[in-house]
Amino acid sequence: MRLSSYFLPILKEDPSEAHVISHKLMLRAGMIRQQNSGIYSWLPLGVKVLQNISNIVRDEMNKMGAIEVILPCIQPAEFWIETGRFDSYGEEMLKFKDRHDVDLLFGPTAEDAITDLARNNIKSYKELPINLYQIQWKFRDEIRPRFGLMRGREFMMKDAYSFDIDQEAAEKSYDKVFQTYLKIFKRIGLKAIPVKAETGPIGGKLSHEFHIVAKNGESEIFYDPKMDSLLDNGEFDIEKIRNTYAASDDVHDGEKCPVDESILRKTKGIEVGHIFNFGTKYTKAMNFTVQGPNGELIHPLCGSYGIGVSRFVAAAIEASHDDKGIIWPKSIAPFDLAIINLNINNSECSEISEKLYDKLKNEFSVLLDDSTQNVGSKFSTNDLIGTPYQIVIGPKLIKDGKLEIKERQNSKTQIVEIDNIDEFIKTFKA
Amino acid sequence: MRLSSYFLPILKEDPSEAHVISHKLMLRAGMIRQQNSGIYSWLPLGVKVLQNISNIVRDEMNKMGAIEVILPCIQPAEFWIETGRFDSYGEEMLKFKDRHDVDLLFGPTAEDAITDLARNNIKSYKELPINLYQIQWKFRDEIRPRFGLMRGREFMMKDAYSFDIDQEAAEKSYDKVFQTYLKIFKRIGLKAIPVKAETGPIGGKLSHEFHIVAKNGESEIFYDPKMDSLLDNGEFDIEKIRNTYAASDDVHDGEKCPVDESILRKTKGIEVGHIFNFGTKYTKAMNFTVQGPNGELIHPLCGSYGIGVSRFVAAAIEASHDDKGIIWPKSIAPFDLAIINLNINNSECSEISEKLYDKLKNEFSVLLDDSTQNVGSKFSTNDLIGTPYQIVIGPKLIKDGKLEIKERQNSKTQIVEIDNIDEFIKTFKA
Repeated sequence: MRLSSYFLPILKEDPSEAHVISHKLMLRAGMIRQQNSGIYSWLPLGVKVLQNISNIVRDEMNKMGAIEVILPCIQPAEFWIETGRFDSYGEEMLKFKDRHDVDLLFGPTAEDAITDLARNNIKSYKELPINLYQIQWKFRDEIRPRFGLMRGREFMMKDAYSFDIDQEAAEKSYDKVFQTYLKIFKRIGLKAIPVKAETGPIGGKLSHEFHIVAKNGESEIFYDPKMDSLLDNGEFDIEKIRNTYAASDDVHDGEKCPVDESILRKTKGIEVGHIFNFGTKYTKAMNFTVQGPNGELIHPLCGSYGIGVSRFVAAAIEASHDDKGIIWPKSIAPFDLAIINLNINNSECSEISEKLYDKLKNEFSVLLDDSTQNVGSKFSTNDLIGTPYQIVIGPKLIKDGKLEIKERQNSKTQIVEIDNIDEFIKTFKA
Repeated sequence: MRLSSYFLPILKEDPSEAHVISHKLMLRAGMIRQQNSGIYSWLPLGVKVLQNISNIVRDEMNKMGAIEVILPCIQPAEFWIETGRFDSYGEEMLKFKDRHDVDLLFGPTAEDAITDLARNNIKSYKELPINLYQIQWKFRDEIRPRFGLMRGREFMMKDAYSFDIDQEAAEKSYDKVFQTYLKIFKRIGLKAIPVKAETGPIGGKLSHEFHIVAKNGESEIFYDPKMDSLLDNGEFDIEKIRNTYAASDDVHDGEKCPVDESILRKTKGIEVGHIFNFGTKYTKAMNFTVQGPNGELIHPLCGSYGIGVSRFVAAAIEASHDDKGIIWPKSIAPFDLAIINLNINNSECSEISEKLYDKLKNEFSVLLDDSTQNVGSKFSTNDLIGTPYQIVIGPKLIKDGKLEIKERQNSKTQIVEIDNIDEFIKTFKA
């Protein structure tokens, strides 16, 4: 992508509407714009990160054996009346009527709708276990939307729903998603701590939240130091992890905590995932049964599993930034690398920049900075949007056949001979 | 994907709720289920086709230089009040209020919202031309939703919006999208006729619709036979195409038609795209100006460009099916090929099927039919869902080291030696 024909409306100053760092940086880096309270338009740079995260989530869900569906944004009230949630869900549910006076709503979650789909299409225990997921826009009519995407109203969620024949199978399904979530966070490159959680309006007894570790996180997390090694080794032994103490401030009680205060780890986190196992709550309310092995009718046991995909974009920024701007994990960066042409009026700079762009754009997502900005603005723009590698092409070095490569994460720069660029580029992929 | 662990709820009988072939086949093939009048859940097979079409549309829009954004589903009424459309759009617009009594709506289109985004972020003629597009859910509250996805309420649309500095540039942008649309339809492999169109509530004078040719299409198309060769040759000379007569029954007038009745071609079609050039209608109403080359303020000229992505799924089926079911164009088929194991209790059949599945699944999207269905059901299921190539592995042929390959499009079958399978598979890609 050439910056000169891209849509990247950078803000030089901190916008007054933003009070947390991720919101500030997303506005400044031209990733989002507020359209209405808690409702955002996604600009091109934001769309790329949203898609990168979605693609990783989709890929890992598919590998796990979950199957993608898409439920409509708009749901009929009738399912929610059946489960009793139409009244109990509260004012966060956006309700309205269509032209024929039928009660509808913009789905804030989809346990009710997916149970309806399942009861009409799944008839036998032989079709279970099954895990259906979607990546779809949701709406929760927050009373005071704030902190940008952290507490917005329209948001993108990956929500998954499992159906099983008995509690043992249901917990196996639960643990499978638990493990997949840890794989997703590891692949994205951000540390997430799983903590025991309250189940709230979804219901059930077994529930965990996943919090991305971030200095300014909204919640405080307390955990047994053993958790760190269980998460680091990449094996993700869910039984051990579930038995290792971790709790957020909602649940943690210093008096009752089994881990000695002197070794208990404390950190701050941002919730990006929440999983629930709630048995037959919805299948009984909606009378979804399947035929069991002996011909008997069984209400399947369910779980639901959410990752806030749009919230994750903000959480990643909270977890990884500096004074200059965003530092994207390579896995979700909107561009893998930038080629910064310091002087577009210098024919040598432009020729080398264009050649390199042509060479790299098929293998990487590349931003060619061919803008008329001054050198200072070019550096600050590219630092702000957080591209992991910046290849700087300037008139002085180019005379000696050299260019500079800067790594955003640690600000390390290296001077490289243009003829050796291939060698260097291999390291980008590692 | 193994059929035994997939979610493919096939219906053996034609559902009584469906009156057109695409609706019948999408229900029978387990692609969609109605959730509420004109609102559908997309099942896994449907999701794959929707994603395949979206990906082709996205890729061609990107190649053209358009830039992807995502506007929220929910829009504030205020933009529509500014353009006068809040009242004039009619009852198809789904309006409602949030908990703070703010007027909102589910976007049926986005000229107003994109003009707001543009006026806040584009300040100079140097930032034009620009074409911003999204692939996003829309809602139109049809009075009588019918024909499945052909006239549903919640639907997926690719909508694009161009901004230009003068009429000449605006028509150039228009023609660029015109050409890109023809490339998209050609790449998908379905013939689409561009016809001059009325502009309706969007406004402006210049407008074309694109109709996929289908025997049971909703509209009648009349066109100069020269159009066929202009579309076939793949050059898409837009000036010539725009000057070649083509009109739908809404616009066609036999008396005034410049093409002699004796050579005029007639066919039926389904509208899948509509493009508009409407000048300053919205930029003036919303006071969006940019600074021109001489410091003067200019209202940019706009066009908007839609492809009904979810409608396209239905149109493709209307255009390509037979008595047995859907015949997907290879470009958008949910699976490239099926491996049909005729007897899962025969160890040789299962061993060969599994080996072949392992070998092919990394290169193709493969459905392994490892179900317990009888042979007849296996054949009818795989014909119904329309997989382009079906590799049949049965106990008799396998003894001689052979298998059968059937091409869905023409029902041609060939017996192939297992050892020669690689040779044969090359032809799938062609």
